[in-house]
Amino acid sequence: MATTTSLNTTTAERATHERKEPTYLFTEKHVAEKSEIARRFIETRSRLNTNVDKSDNYLVKRFYNIDHNTYLEGALPAKMKELMGLAASTVLRCDDCVFYHAIQAYRMGVTRAEQEEAINVALVVGGSIVIPHLRRAYELLEELYR
Amino acid sequence: MATTTSLNTTTAERATHERKEPTYLFTEKHVAEKSEIARRFIETRSRLNTNVDKSDNYLVKRFYNIDHNTYLEGALPAKMKELMGLAASTVLRCDDCVFYHAIQAYRMGVTRAEQEEAINVALVVGGSIVIPHLRRAYELLEELYR
Amino acid sequence: MATTTSLNTTTAERATHERKEPTYLFTEKHVAEKSEIARRFIETRSRLNTNVDKSDNYLVKRFYNIDHNTYLEGALPAKMKELMGLAASTVLRCDDCVFYHAIQAYRMGVTRAEQEEAINVALVVGGSIVIPHLRRAYELLEELYR
Amino acid sequence: MATTTSLNTTTAERATHERKEPTYLFTEKHVAEKSEIARRFIETRSRLNTNVDKSDNYLVKRFYNIDHNTYLEGALPAKMKELMGLAASTVLRCDDCVFYHAIQAYRMGVTRAEQEEAINVALVVGGSIVIPHLRRAYELLEELYR
Amino acid sequence: MATTTSLNTTTAERATHERKEPTYLFTEKHVAEKSEIARRFIETRSRLNTNVDKSDNYLVKRFYNIDHNTYLEGALPAKMKELMGLAASTVLRCDDCVFYHAIQAYRMGVTRAEQEEAINVALVVGGSIVIPHLRRAYELLEELYR
Amino acid sequence: MATTTSLNTTTAERATHERKEPTYLFTEKHVAEKSEIARRFIETRSRLNTNVDKSDNYLVKRFYNIDHNTYLEGALPAKMKELMGLAASTVLRCDDCVFYHAIQAYRMGVTRAEQEEAINVALVVGGSIVIPHLRRAYELLEELYR
Repeated sequence: MATTTSLNTTTAERATHERKEPTYLFTEKHVAEKSEIARRFIETRSRLNTNVDKSDNYLVKRFYNIDHNTYLEGALPAKMKELMGLAASTVLRCDDCVFYHAIQAYRMGVTRAEQEEAINVALVVGGSIVIPHLRRAYELLEELYR
Repeated sequence: MATTTSLNTTTAERATHERKEPTYLFTEKHVAEKSEIARRFIETRSRLNTNVDKSDNYLVKRFYNIDHNTYLEGALPAKMKELMGLAASTVLRCDDCVFYHAIQAYRMGVTRAEQEEAINVALVVGGSIVIPHLRRAYELLEELYR
Repeated sequence: MATTTSLNTTTAERATHERKEPTYLFTEKHVAEKSEIARRFIETRSRLNTNVDKSDNYLVKRFYNIDHNTYLEGALPAKMKELMGLAASTVLRCDDCVFYHAIQAYRMGVTRAEQEEAINVALVVGGSIVIPHLRRAYELLEELYR
Repeated sequence: MATTTSLNTTTAERATHERKEPTYLFTEKHVAEKSEIARRFIETRSRLNTNVDKSDNYLVKRFYNIDHNTYLEGALPAKMKELMGLAASTVLRCDDCVFYHAIQAYRMGVTRAEQEEAINVALVVGGSIVIPHLRRAYELLEELYR
Repeated sequence: MATTTSLNTTTAERATHERKEPTYLFTEKHVAEKSEIARRFIETRSRLNTNVDKSDNYLVKRFYNIDHNTYLEGALPAKMKELMGLAASTVLRCDDCVFYHAIQAYRMGVTRAEQEEAINVALVVGGSIVIPHLRRAYELLEELYR
Repeated sequence: MATTTSLNTTTAERATHERKEPTYLFTEKHVAEKSEIARRFIETRSRLNTNVDKSDNYLVKRFYNIDHNTYLEGALPAKMKELMGLAASTVLRCDDCVFYHAIQAYRMGVTRAEQEEAINVALVVGGSIVIPHLRRAYELLEELYR
C-alpha cells in the first residue's frame, strides 16, 4: 500500500502545473461547418457576447476571465476539465453550457465514447430530469462525430 | 488538421472499453483511520445503507447497481469519472456526495491538486453558493492528504 | 376508446370537490412517541415556528395558509397529495420537507410500500444525488412502520 | 386509533404488488391529433430518442429501463405515480418532463382537475419560479381536455 | 457604535409600512414598443395567463395574489424588491422570470447600472451556469435602455 | 412620462459609482456576542477558511476576491446588495449563505423588517421548500434584533 504522502502536492510541485492554453485540434469555424446545431449555438453566443462586451461591466469581465482560467491545462488535462464542466452543466440542466463544453471537448480531441461516459455520470447523478438535455446533447454529438 | 473520423468510436472499438472494477490504492478502513471526517461519513453511510438493504426495494437495488456501474473503468479512467461525480455533486451542493466521491478519488490515487481542480470547476460553474461545501471538502482533503 | 370530454371537469363538477381537512389515523404525539427522528423533527419545527409566528409577518402567514390549503382533500385524496409533496421535496433534496410529508402521509394511513414507491419516483427523476436523502427517509420509515 | 402494524407491508404482501403495465385509455397518436403542443413534443422526443437508441449506450439503455419500471402499476396506481412525476418535474422546472407526465396521466384517464391539483402542489412547493412552466402546462391541458 | 435596538421594527413602526402599489414611470405598452424582446415576452405571457385565468383555479389565483403583494412598496422600496426578484430569478435561471423583473424594474425607473449590479450578485452567487441567462438579460437591457 | 434616456448610465456617470467598502455599524465580534447562532457560524466559517487559505489555491483566492468586490458600494447601496445576496441564497436554500448575508446586512444597519421583506421575496419566488431555511433565518434574526 502506497504512503499517502505521495498523493499530496507540495507548493513546489504545484508550480510545475503552470496553467497554459490547451491545444485545439479543431477551430470553432470547423465545428460550425460540421454541425448545424453547433453553428447556431456559436453564432448566437458570439452575437450576445458582443452585447455583453459592449456594456464593459467590470465584474462580468473579471468573472469571464476567471472562468477562462479554470479550464486551462493544469494538474488535470484541459480535456478532462471540459468533461467535468460538461457533467456539471448537464446535472444543472443548462443546454447552452452543455453545448459549450461538448464542443470544447470535441475541439480538444475527446472521443464520442468519452463524452458519452461523462454524460452518463451526469445522468446517474442527476436523474431522468437530465434526459431531455441528454437527448439534445446526443443530437449535437451525432453531428460532430459523423 | 486531423480528420474528425478519428475521434469517433465504432461499436467494435467500444467493445474494447470493457467495464471493469477500478484498482484502489487504499481501503475504506485505511481512509477511516486517517481522517475522522471520513470515518464518521463512512460509518453513518454504512449504518443507513444496512437499513435500505433490509427494505429490499427492487428499484432502489437496481438504481444502486446502475450507479455502481457508472464509475467503473471504461472509455474514461475510473479516477476521472469520480472527479466528474465530485464536480457534479459539488454544483448540486450535496455534502455526502462530495465526501463520497472525494474519498473514492483519494482511494484510487488522485492527488490533492487534482481534487482541487475538479472542485474549482464546480466553484466557477456553481458560484459562491458552492463555497460552504468547498470549505467542508477542503477540511476533508486536509485530513486525507496530510 | 373513451371520449376525452369525460375527463374534463366542468365548473359545476369542480364545486363538488370541496376542500376539507383530511382524516388522520394518528396524532403528532403518537408519531413522536413511536419515532425518535420524528420526535426531534416535530419539536424543532414547533419551536422554530413559534418564533416565526411571533414575528407576525403578513405575507408569511398568508403563505403558510395557502400551503395548508394545498394538501386538503380535493379532486385528489389528501394522501396522494402528501405523497406528491414527498416526491417533490425529495427531488429538491430538503430533509425537513421529506420528514414533514412522510410523517403526514403516515398519519393518514399511507403504507410503507406506498411511501417507498413515491420515493422511487423521486430517486429516478432526481438521480443519485437523492440517495443521501433517501437513506435518511428510510431511517424514519423504519421507525414509523416497525 | 389503529395499530401501526397494519400500515406495514410484509414481504409477502409486497409480492402481491406485481408491477404491470398501466392501461391506457388513449394512444399517443390520439393525443397528437388532439393537441398540437402534444404532437410537436411527441415528434421531437421520438426523433431525438431514435438518435439516442442508435448510439446503443449500455448505461443509457439501463437507465431508460429503470425509468420505465418506476411508473408501472404497483403499491400505488400508475396514474398517481405519473402525477408524482408531474409534480417532481414541475418543481424541477423541466417543460419536456412536465409535458411527458401530463400526457401520460391524460392517457391513463386522469382528469383535468386532478392534473391541476398535482401542479398546485408543485406551485406551492416550488414557488413563483414555477409559474412560467405552469402557464405552458395549462396551455397543453387546455388542448388535451377541450 | 449604535445600539441594536434602533434597528428593530416594532409593530407600531411596521404599521407605517403600509403596502401600496408602486409608481410606474412607463407602461407595459411603452416597454413593448421600445423592445421587441419585451413585446414578445409580454404578449406570450398575456396570452398564456388568459388561459390560466379561464381555468379559475382557486389556489393558483391565491398564489398570484400573494405574489403580487410581495413586490408592493413596504419596508423596502418596490424597486429594490424587483431587483431582489431579479437576482433570485437569475440564480434559479428562469428567463421568463428574469425578463419579468427586469421589465418591472425598468418601468419603476431603475437604471441600467443598477440592473447590472443586481445581475452581478446573481452571477457571483450562481456561477457561470448563469451566463447564458445573463447574456439574454443584457440583450433585453440593451433594447430597454437605448 | 420620463424619457428613457434618463435611466441609462453613460460611461462617465458610471465612473462616479466607484466601488468602496461599506460602512459597518457593528463588528463581527459584537454580532457574535449578541447571537449564539451567529457566534457559532462565524467561528466555524473562520476555522474552515483558515484551512482553505492554507491551500493557497490560485483560483479559489481569485473567486473569493471577486465575491468580495460584488458587494461593495456601487450603483446600488451595499446594504441592498447584501439583501439581494440574502434573497438569492434563500431561494438556493444555503443556510450558511443565508446566515452570512443576514449578518452582513445587520452589521450595515438593515432593519429586521427589511430583512423579512427580502426573505419574503425568496419565499414567494422559491416556494414552501424555502420554509425550513426561513425558520432558521428567523431564529437568527430573533437573536440579532432583540
